[in-house]
Amino acid sequence: MLIRLGYDIQFEIPAPVAIVALVHVFPTRVPDLQEPDVLHLEPDVPVREFVDVFGNRCSRFLAPKGRIRLSTSTLIKDSGLPDVVPTDVRQLPVDELPAETLQFLLNSRYCEVDRLNHIASELFGHIPEGWDRVQAVCDWVHQKVTFGYFFARHTKTALDVYVERNGVCRDFQHLAITFCRCLNIPARYVTGYLGDIRIDLPPSPMDFSAWFEVYLEDRWWTCDARHNRPRVGRVLMAVGRDAADVAITTSFGQADLANFTVISDEVPEG
Amino acid sequence: MLIRLGYDIQFEIPAPVAIVALVHVFPTRVPDLQEPDVLHLEPDVPVREFVDVFGNRCSRFLAPKGRIRLSTSTLIKDSGLPDVVPTDVRQLPVDELPAETLQFLLNSRYCEVDRLNHIASELFGHIPEGWDRVQAVCDWVHQKVTFGYFFARHTKTALDVYVERNGVCRDFQHLAITFCRCLNIPARYVTGYLGDIRIDLPPSPMDFSAWFEVYLEDRWWTCDARHNRPRVGRVLMAVGRDAADVAITTSFGQADLANFTVISDEVPEG
Amino acid sequence: MLIRLGYDIQFEIPAPVAIVALVHVFPTRVPDLQEPDVLHLEPDVPVREFVDVFGNRCSRFLAPKGRIRLSTSTLIKDSGLPDVVPTDVRQLPVDELPAETLQFLLNSRYCEVDRLNHIASELFGHIPEGWDRVQAVCDWVHQKVTFGYFFARHTKTALDVYVERNGVCRDFQHLAITFCRCLNIPARYVTGYLGDIRIDLPPSPMDFSAWFEVYLEDRWWTCDARHNRPRVGRVLMAVGRDAADVAITTSFGQADLANFTVISDEVPEG
Amino acid sequence: MLIRLGYDIQFEIPAPVAIVALVHVFPTRVPDLQEPDVLHLEPDVPVREFVDVFGNRCSRFLAPKGRIRLSTSTLIKDSGLPDVVPTDVRQLPVDELPAETLQFLLNSRYCEVDRLNHIASELFGHIPEGWDRVQAVCDWVHQKVTFGYFFARHTKTALDVYVERNGVCRDFQHLAITFCRCLNIPARYVTGYLGDIRIDLPPSPMDFSAWFEVYLEDRWWTCDARHNRPRVGRVLMAVGRDAADVAITTSFGQADLANFTVISDEVPEG
Repeated sequence: MLIRLGYDIQFEIPAPVAIVALVHVFPTRVPDLQEPDVLHLEPDVPVREFVDVFGNRCSRFLAPKGRIRLSTSTLIKDSGLPDVVPTDVRQLPVDELPAETLQFLLNSRYCEVDRLNHIASELFGHIPEGWDRVQAVCDWVHQKVTFGYFFARHTKTALDVYVERNGVCRDFQHLAITFCRCLNIPARYVTGYLGDIRIDLPPSPMDFSAWFEVYLEDRWWTCDARHNRPRVGRVLMAVGRDAADVAITTSFGQADLANFTVISDEVPEG
Repeated sequence: MLIRLGYDIQFEIPAPVAIVALVHVFPTRVPDLQEPDVLHLEPDVPVREFVDVFGNRCSRFLAPKGRIRLSTSTLIKDSGLPDVVPTDVRQLPVDELPAETLQFLLNSRYCEVDRLNHIASELFGHIPEGWDRVQAVCDWVHQKVTFGYFFARHTKTALDVYVERNGVCRDFQHLAITFCRCLNIPARYVTGYLGDIRIDLPPSPMDFSAWFEVYLEDRWWTCDARHNRPRVGRVLMAVGRDAADVAITTSFGQADLANFTVISDEVPEG
Repeated sequence: MLIRLGYDIQFEIPAPVAIVALVHVFPTRVPDLQEPDVLHLEPDVPVREFVDVFGNRCSRFLAPKGRIRLSTSTLIKDSGLPDVVPTDVRQLPVDELPAETLQFLLNSRYCEVDRLNHIASELFGHIPEGWDRVQAVCDWVHQKVTFGYFFARHTKTALDVYVERNGVCRDFQHLAITFCRCLNIPARYVTGYLGDIRIDLPPSPMDFSAWFEVYLEDRWWTCDARHNRPRVGRVLMAVGRDAADVAITTSFGQADLANFTVISDEVPEG
Repeated sequence: MLIRLGYDIQFEIPAPVAIVALVHVFPTRVPDLQEPDVLHLEPDVPVREFVDVFGNRCSRFLAPKGRIRLSTSTLIKDSGLPDVVPTDVRQLPVDELPAETLQFLLNSRYCEVDRLNHIASELFGHIPEGWDRVQAVCDWVHQKVTFGYFFARHTKTALDVYVERNGVCRDFQHLAITFCRCLNIPARYVTGYLGDIRIDLPPSPMDFSAWFEVYLEDRWWTCDARHNRPRVGRVLMAVGRDAADVAITTSFGQADLANFTVISDEVPEG
C-alpha cells in the first residue's frame, strides 16, 4: 500500500523568530520512503537539522518577517496492515524494564502521574496486568471522553481531561498515557500521519494526529485511546513524553498560524 | 578545599519495589573525587547503573520487603571559589543556541512555560537581555517567595509558587527556571550537595539541595534563586528539566521514608 | 428612551429536570417596565417564584421530557444616559463598609481572592484608592485580556483568566472583581441586558451580558472591564458573588441548549 | 449534659485592620446557653454585630496595632445524645426542595460542583438515593482521605482533596459536600465546637471543628466525613456554602496568629 503524505503549514511572522519543526517521518520509517522527505520553506531560508534525545529528526530555522510556508509531498510504502493487538504480551516488572524506557514512567508537563495515581489504581488496579490493563485504559478514556475541537486548549493536562471529559486527539492520549504510567507501564506520546485524515483548520497549531505507545514484553506497541480500534496507515513522525516534546512546530516568539493542511491519502500502486 | 560528602537514606518497604536513585556526583566532577563514590545498600541487593538522556549516572535496584538503607561517604576536592557571576556574557538568540540546549526552553512537569509567559514578559521584558535579566529573575523570586518546609508539596508547580509565594528550594528554582525559559533563556534544574547544609528531616523525600543553570554565551552558569548570592562548595549530582527528572530516589510503588541525612562538610586538607 | 427586551431560550430535555431561571429584571428596575415582564413557558408548566439571598427574582419549574421554550418580550423605559463615572467618590475603609457589602470581599467559585492577592497588590497597590484604582483594574483587564467565544469554558476562574489572558464577558468581569476584592473594594457580578447586543448562538448557555459593580462611598457603581467605557441601556437582571450565583438558567440534570436568542433594541418612543 | 466552651485567639497586628469574627453559637443554640456568650476583646475596642445571609451572628471590629486577644468562656446545655442517623429519610427531588436550600446545590469557592460531577456520578450513581447515598459519600471520603495537619493549605479545594487524598477537617467536609451537591443533595458547611476536642496550635487560623449538613426529607441532618461516626456534644456556630463563608476570623489586611486555643469540655452538672 502506498500513501501520499504532505502538509502545507503557513505562518504570518511579525518579527524574525526561531522555529523548530518536527515534520519528518521517524527514522524507523525512512526505508519505506519512495520519494524524498524534504521540508520546503518559502522563502527559502536555511534549515539546520538535529536529532533530539528521543531520536526525532528536528528542523530549525529563522523565520523572517512576513508569510512563511512549510510544505512537503512524499510517498511512503506501508504494510497496509492494521495495528497489532498483542493480547498475550507480558507486562514487565519495573525492575526488568530496559533503562531507556524508565523515563516514560515519569511525570511530564501534560501527564501528571503524581496527581492521577490514586485514581488510576481505583479504576484499573483490579484488571489483570499487561495488554488487558492497557486495553481497559483505552476503553475507559474512549468511552468517557467526548471529542470536539471546541474543547482544545494548549495548556490542557491529563487531569483536566479526566475532570472535563472532553478534548481533542492529544487529550485522549495524554490521559491514557498518564494512567498507564501510574500503573507502571511505560507510555510515550506519538505524532504522525493517520490514513483517512485530512484536516483543513485555520485556528491554532494542531498536531497532525496523535496516538501513543506502551512498552510491554520486549517492544513498543501502538495504542490509540481516541479511535480505540486497529487502524491502517499510521506513519510515525516523532515520539516524546507528551505533546510538549513533539509539537509539530515550536516558535520562540510570535507566529500566527495562517494555514494548516495535512494530507495522508492512499494512492494506487504502480 | 576538601569536602566530605555523604548521605544515609532509609526506607521502610512493605512489598518489593523497584527504585531508581540519582545519588552519584555528576560525571564532570568525577576527576575531583578523592575517594570512590559508591552507593552502599543494606541489605546488599544488586545494583545496575545506567546513564539517562541528560547524562546523569543512575542506579537501579529492587528493594526487598523491610528496611533498606542507601548510604555513602566520599571525599571531593573543590576549588573553594564562589559561583561565578558572569555579568558580561551574551544571551544568544534562539537561532544560535546549540541544539542540545533547546529542550531546556520547553514546558516540563513543574515548569509551565505556557502558563507563565505573559507574566514573565510583564515582569522582565524591560530588563536588558543576558545576565542582567537572569539576575532580575533571581532577585524577584528571592524577594517575593518565602522559604518554609511547611510549604512543601511534591505536586507544586512554578505557577503554584508564583501564586502562593512560598516553598522550599526546589520551588524557588522551578519558578526562576520557568521565567528564564519564557524569556528564551535555556534553564535546567540541578540537584547536588551544597556546603554548610546538613539536613536531618523525617518527612517526605527531600532533594539534597537544588539550584539551576542557565545557558548564556557559550556555557551553562550556576544560579540559585533560593540563596541568591554566590556560594562555595556546590557539588553537582544531576541535571534535568525539573525535579521530576532528577528526584534523588524514585520508587515505583510504596516506600516510606524512615531516615534522610545528608552530609556536606569542609574538612581540613592533609 | 425605550428598550424592547426579550429572549427565546430552548432546551431539549431527555428526562424531566428541575430548572431555576434568573430571567426577570431586577426589582429596582420594575418601576421602569412599560409592559409586564413575564416568563412564558412552552409547554406551559407551572412556575414558582422566589427571591434569593441577593434579592434576585428567581423562577423554578420542572421541565418535562422534550423541547421546552422560555421566552418573553417586554418594554422598559431607560434614562438613556451612559454609566456614571464617579471620579471623586471615596473608598471606605473596610471597617466603615455596610455589613451587607462584606460578603462581596470574600472568595467565591470563580473569584479566588486567596490566590490573586499578591498579584493585585503588585499591580495596583501604588494607585490611589477609590475610583482611580477601580479604573486601573478595568484598564488592565481590558488591555491584557483578549475577547473570543472560542475561549469560553464554564469552569474558567479569575486565575485562569489572569494566566490565559483570554475569555468572554464573564471572564473579564471575574478577573476585575477578584482584583477589586483583593484591594478591599466590595465587588459583585451582574447579569443583564446591554443595548446593541443581539446574540444568536447555539453552543452552551451564555449569560446575556455580564458586568460588575463596586461599592464606593455610599452605593454600588457600574463597571465593565469588557467594554471599559460608559454604555447606554444596561438593564440589570441579577447580582451575585460571581457567575455561579446568577446563571441565566441552572438545570439540575441534563438539558441541551437548542436555541438562545436575546433581544435588547432601542425602539422609537410613542 | 453541660459543656464548657471557650477560646483564646490572639493576633499580632502590624497596622490597624478590620476583622470579622464568627465566634458565637448559632441562634438555634442560644436557648441552651447557661451563661452569656460574649466576645471579649483585649484591648477593649468597640464591636459591632450583624447577621449575614446565612443567619450567622457575626462580630466586626477594628483591631489596633499590637497584640489583640479574642476570648470567651461560656456554658451550654446539651442533650448528650449522639448525632441522629436518619436511615429512612427521603431525598427530595430538586423540584420539591425548599427554595432556601437551592443555593446549597451550587458551586462555591472550595466546592467545585462543575468539576466533580462526572466523578460523583461514577462513584455514587448506583447507590440508592437518600441517606444511603450520603453515607456512601462519607464512607468513601473517610476511607480514602488521610488526616494530617501537614496537609493543610488554605487554598485547597474539593478537587485538590480528591486528587491528593489528604487534608484536615475542612478538606474532608469540602469533598463530601461537593459530592452531595453533584448528586442534587443540598449540603452546607458547618463550624462549631466538638466535644473532646482541644487544639493548641500556633500556625495559621484553624477552624474550630468542621462538619456538614445535608437536607433530606424536611430538615438538615448532621454529617461528618472526618469522623464518620455519631458524636456527642457538637455545638453549631455558623453555616455557609463552604469555609470561605464561615472562617472563624477574616482579617482584611495582615494579622499574624499568635495563639489559638479552643476549649470544649464536658463539666459535671450542678
